[in-house]
Amino acid sequence: MNPETQLAQLKSILNKYSDLVAAIGLLHWDLETQMPSGGSAGRGYQLATLTHIAHETFTSDQVGQLLEDLLPYAEQIDPDSDDARIIQVTDRLYKKRVRVPANLMAEIAKAASDAHQVWVRAREEADFASFLPSLEMILSLKRQYADHFRPFEHMYDPLLDDYEPGLKTADVQAIFSALRPRQVELIRAISERQQVDDSFLHLHYDESLQWKFGVEVISDYGYDWQHGRQDKSAHPFTQDIGIGDVRITTRVMDDYFPSAFFSTTHESGHGIYAQGVDPNLDRTPLSKGASLAVHESQSRMYENLIGRSRQFWSHYYPRLQEIFPDQLGNVATDEFYRAINKVEPSLIRVEADEATYNMHIMLRLELEIALIEGSLEVKDLPEAWHAGMQDYLGLAPPNDTLGVLQDVHWSQGYFGYFSTYALGNLLSAQLWEAMVKDIPDVDAQIQRGDFKPLTAWMREKVHHHGAKFKPQELIQRITGSKIDPDPYMRYLTQKYSEIYQL
Amino acid sequence: MNPETQLAQLKSILNKYSDLVAAIGLLHWDLETQMPSGGSAGRGYQLATLTHIAHETFTSDQVGQLLEDLLPYAEQIDPDSDDARIIQVTDRLYKKRVRVPANLMAEIAKAASDAHQVWVRAREEADFASFLPSLEMILSLKRQYADHFRPFEHMYDPLLDDYEPGLKTADVQAIFSALRPRQVELIRAISERQQVDDSFLHLHYDESLQWKFGVEVISDYGYDWQHGRQDKSAHPFTQDIGIGDVRITTRVMDDYFPSAFFSTTHESGHGIYAQGVDPNLDRTPLSKGASLAVHESQSRMYENLIGRSRQFWSHYYPRLQEIFPDQLGNVATDEFYRAINKVEPSLIRVEADEATYNMHIMLRLELEIALIEGSLEVKDLPEAWHAGMQDYLGLAPPNDTLGVLQDVHWSQGYFGYFSTYALGNLLSAQLWEAMVKDIPDVDAQIQRGDFKPLTAWMREKVHHHGAKFKPQELIQRITGSKIDPDPYMRYLTQKYSEIYQL
Repeated sequence: MNPETQLAQLKSILNKYSDLVAAIGLLHWDLETQMPSGGSAGRGYQLATLTHIAHETFTSDQVGQLLEDLLPYAEQIDPDSDDARIIQVTDRLYKKRVRVPANLMAEIAKAASDAHQVWVRAREEADFASFLPSLEMILSLKRQYADHFRPFEHMYDPLLDDYEPGLKTADVQAIFSALRPRQVELIRAISERQQVDDSFLHLHYDESLQWKFGVEVISDYGYDWQHGRQDKSAHPFTQDIGIGDVRITTRVMDDYFPSAFFSTTHESGHGIYAQGVDPNLDRTPLSKGASLAVHESQSRMYENLIGRSRQFWSHYYPRLQEIFPDQLGNVATDEFYRAINKVEPSLIRVEADEATYNMHIMLRLELEIALIEGSLEVKDLPEAWHAGMQDYLGLAPPNDTLGVLQDVHWSQGYFGYFSTYALGNLLSAQLWEAMVKDIPDVDAQIQRGDFKPLTAWMREKVHHHGAKFKPQELIQRITGSKIDPDPYMRYLTQKYSEIYQL
Repeated sequence: MNPETQLAQLKSILNKYSDLVAAIGLLHWDLETQMPSGGSAGRGYQLATLTHIAHETFTSDQVGQLLEDLLPYAEQIDPDSDDARIIQVTDRLYKKRVRVPANLMAEIAKAASDAHQVWVRAREEADFASFLPSLEMILSLKRQYADHFRPFEHMYDPLLDDYEPGLKTADVQAIFSALRPRQVELIRAISERQQVDDSFLHLHYDESLQWKFGVEVISDYGYDWQHGRQDKSAHPFTQDIGIGDVRITTRVMDDYFPSAFFSTTHESGHGIYAQGVDPNLDRTPLSKGASLAVHESQSRMYENLIGRSRQFWSHYYPRLQEIFPDQLGNVATDEFYRAINKVEPSLIRVEADEATYNMHIMLRLELEIALIEGSLEVKDLPEAWHAGMQDYLGLAPPNDTLGVLQDVHWSQGYFGYFSTYALGNLLSAQLWEAMVKDIPDVDAQIQRGDFKPLTAWMREKVHHHGAKFKPQELIQRITGSKIDPDPYMRYLTQKYSEIYQL
């Protein structure tokens, strides 16, 4: 058989696999946004069955044989071509996934589905004990999963690699070690200055008007409603069901403006990324982003580098005042700008300011590694969380809703995921510096509410390529260096020096 | 291997199959209620892939072998036991489905998915020509499908049998031939009497209040919101995603009260049926209803025998007046009762009164048979529809939106489905007569808004059994005879004699 025929066969299997992944995506999205509670048991079975079939489809002997035959062909053609990358990326994923039995994948899917409503209820009721058995089960399954990758440098490596291909635990720890003292120093310096007033953000803001304003802004950003929609969920997320259907969710607090707005702009960044992948890569494993950190670079960019910038609000603030005249009519743009950038150690990660955000991530990474290693038991997690919050941010949560139960991730088995948020912060600034070289006028454009050149740049450099390149390779190609904390620290320091007169 | 082990193996495969069917159900529900238009192409692929896998799973050699080994075992155990029925029903389905290639099933699924938005748009724009290629494609595929069942008495038989196991085209034609003159005579007699006034039904009725009232009523009926939800769609439908998650949809017209209310009560009947299947049958092919006619007996019962009855409105009308005082404050209960039962030949099936409804079905059956036989070409369908409407109801639709484009069914490949609506009407009255013997007090209960005994009776006699019995067998067990038009004609004659003083 010639390579073209073999490649067509491989793609046909990958198409089928991707259709299953899309259906799994819909089952997930529905579970978190639409499903009545009575559907919970069935949903677990459905997710387990589809995950099992998807895993078997991807790791079949036929795929293994096709890849073996096609790897030399991939070496001969343009190394940046879609075909070469489809073969190579699939081969990397195949060699990883073939180690794991389909039954274990199905068990993890079922446990995660079953745990969702348990977590939602436990979070509502600040009742960690009711969530404990679910989390123990999931952790045990994820440890079994990691076990299939022995030998490894660190047991956390294969989990991290699922979200951040090629990155090791030691790499992240090194980056975080370099970062931590600089962030601690920044937070300390800010804490000595006079605090800004953000009391007007805590007034009553009508839910539907908040929703409407968020929709206006992300439509301007370039989020495409023909290929997406927005719903409410307990924890905001983005789910693609193929490139043509990329859905975002948010949550709205009627007594705190920033929550919905910044989660909406955040998710729109994920959405714009997923909507912008080259359609040639649809229905292949390359149709997702390069990694979660690269994904997070986009969500954090639209949320923070744009959405918390002075230029942005010089354009949108009059509009916001028009919508909320009672709340903001007497608040100046500059006051508002400083309020949404107020730095203050706080309990909830997704509401955290940019200076303290990464501290939340460092805590989670430390706890995850301890859980996976086995040096921390799940039952001791709330206490370890308390101690960690004291250490990192000088705060103790009054209950587990504001503590260990706040994030959806562990209930879904997403161990290895959290550090990508901090890495995404770093990348957002690193990509921004590269972009500014090509679009020196970008600040003025944002001031006019024009995001087209900026989004087009990200499309071409980042979104379009899907998962063709590993994250470090992609970043190196675009910025000339690997993940680098310096641009982010420059960005934070400059921004807060101005706001807090450091 | 002993039969118990083999049965466990069979059930395990059926569970997997049912999970896939549930996921397909969600993909469908989402397509009609939530999906952004950009998801359309991907959805076709997803449905095709899952349908292909589901079909292959169900028709595998392993299933064939297990069934062959298990059939003698099923003969030895209690013939009404779940296990005996699971083996026998699965065997019947297997022998049918194994004749059809998985690729054809996948093609039909893809064509139907692709056609959905084409139909929605064509219906909105009264543009049959734009829908013609889709419908030609689907008809051609369904004819290919039927071809796999040669030899047959009639080419329409295998299609009908998919919805109404065991019933032949000739059976339905015989029932309809007996029914038609009696319905024609009833409509004629009514047409000679003075028409009732229903102008107050055509006033402005607030959408959200209509929605709220419908929810109140179907909650009283017993529709369980823990295991369901209601959304809007172009064409009302019920979709179960397993027994624990049975969703209904409706559509609301703000200038005509009956539309949303009767489609809501109609779909709630399907919903209550699907929610009431014995949980032991969940994740097997027996978890659906006995047939579509039996399903329709329940939807038409909650919609009409209850929802258009004098007793029902003697309880609910004061509440409805309270909600719509401007529209109904001066309309007496009896006036309202007669208005919602007004008989008048009309263009839209789902809005038709009980006396003319079956005429719509007879027309569709005639056209479907002609299309499947090949004696009518799709391009000539609008003209045939016009001629048929003149013949059956003395009306011609002014455009195709009010004519051939009104129903979703053909766009979804549901050829063979329509006659089950009329059969369901017959069964609704037949079951009602049987129920009244056990619950002579039912009218007084309805007058109190108490549907518990009635719904409990249907639960026990009908819903609980899922698809364990073929429709004719089930009806015979409950009522002592097979499908019989007499009870329905008795019901109609009695009802309209009183309203129209025949």
